[in-house]
Amino acid sequence: MKIDIVGRGNVGMHLLKAFNNAGMQDVNIINPHTLEGLDAHSDLILIAVADSAIESVAGALDAQLSILPSGKLPIIAHTSGATSMNILSVPGTKYGVFYPLQTFSKGVDLNYSEIPIFIEGNDNETSKTLENIAKLISDKVYYANSEQRHGLHLASVLACNFVNHLWSLSEDILNRYNLDFSVMRPLIEETMRKANTHSPSEVQTGPASRLDYNTIESHLAMLQNNPALHNIYSLLSESIINKTKEIKSKHTGLID
Amino acid sequence: MKIDIVGRGNVGMHLLKAFNNAGMQDVNIINPHTLEGLDAHSDLILIAVADSAIESVAGALDAQLSILPSGKLPIIAHTSGATSMNILSVPGTKYGVFYPLQTFSKGVDLNYSEIPIFIEGNDNETSKTLENIAKLISDKVYYANSEQRHGLHLASVLACNFVNHLWSLSEDILNRYNLDFSVMRPLIEETMRKANTHSPSEVQTGPASRLDYNTIESHLAMLQNNPALHNIYSLLSESIINKTKEIKSKHTGLID
Repeated sequence: MKIDIVGRGNVGMHLLKAFNNAGMQDVNIINPHTLEGLDAHSDLILIAVADSAIESVAGALDAQLSILPSGKLPIIAHTSGATSMNILSVPGTKYGVFYPLQTFSKGVDLNYSEIPIFIEGNDNETSKTLENIAKLISDKVYYANSEQRHGLHLASVLACNFVNHLWSLSEDILNRYNLDFSVMRPLIEETMRKANTHSPSEVQTGPASRLDYNTIESHLAMLQNNPALHNIYSLLSESIINKTKEIKSKHTGLID
Repeated sequence: MKIDIVGRGNVGMHLLKAFNNAGMQDVNIINPHTLEGLDAHSDLILIAVADSAIESVAGALDAQLSILPSGKLPIIAHTSGATSMNILSVPGTKYGVFYPLQTFSKGVDLNYSEIPIFIEGNDNETSKTLENIAKLISDKVYYANSEQRHGLHLASVLACNFVNHLWSLSEDILNRYNLDFSVMRPLIEETMRKANTHSPSEVQTGPASRLDYNTIESHLAMLQNNPALHNIYSLLSESIINKTKEIKSKHTGLID
């Protein structure tokens, strides 16, 4: 099994490490600008570059492969959540997606077997090969078509990027009152533990979920000099209130 | 040391357990409606009821204490983040706040020594007594005046209640695409781990933080039939973009 990883960013370097940890030594990192060392005999060529660069790198790859001597056709797959498989479509080739759902940082070790990998292939054989390769590094391999992967990516923006930003806004508020964000950590950890063992909507707490309009109003008054955060607080509270009422009316419906 | 806890909700029951775990056996739960068994010789009476009921319970307490035989004055403190200390103000009495920053669920064991407790007293002696009692159950005891505690409460709504709601919205999206929320957990855990070891604003990732307007637009297009979530996505992305630019301009300022 030979794999070329085109891209030298966090995703590429972590995938290299994951494959090496799984005992696969014939994995090479390829410079996306020169494609130097690209091997047309590889089983899989992973394009791990910024979303906006995938199409041009794929074009360069196809051009390069067409002039290299080859006995077989490598699968070309990108690693992006937000990019359709069809961006790689070239008639007569094998292509797909190999999307690890994780946030990768330089120098941070991860347990790769826990990281879900979502694969998609342009035909059944390609899907099966990508699945088998993914299973070498992860216990959580799923098939997802491009539409599902877009949903997954959107859901991850809410669950991770937006969540981290709320922590950052929370830190700003604490700093304004001369308090340190570290005081919030036990509460954050318990909130996560609850959401890990339940559906998050079942364990929603706070002023909005108990329809405590007095507290909501007093928080909004504290934010009157920060219109952006005032709006965020209003919208999220409204969303929680609507969901709470929806859940209640469902339960009432059951009892009636 | 004798403590009466007025209120039979999650906060009261968890505080009882925390005191008992710390070897304090003379702690009693008092029914807030009857105040039966209230002891004017207690050192501390904790009012652990819904925010909206604190004032009336405090009034009933004062009336009851005035007719009980007593040699000393118990400290009366509430356990609320969103309520000022002065709601308990009665001339000639000792009062304060004993606010544990945690989300308490029935039947869930917690490591009480990790839970930050914020105390406030109407005079130095009361503050000191509350601090000493808090230190019996927690390693993290802080003084916070009512304004700081309001800030803390607002910050905790953002960092926990809103965060949990974003997870719930994320789950809705995943379900729409026939995917299970459990696939998101390793990513959520890693996001939390990063925010635990850095300032959250330093580890912000995602389309908005890399000013990737194409992905933002494609996510917004997926939400066109859900105006509420569309607005939330827009506002939070805008907020991340503004913060990213702010941080960048600060760094540029340093280099110039």
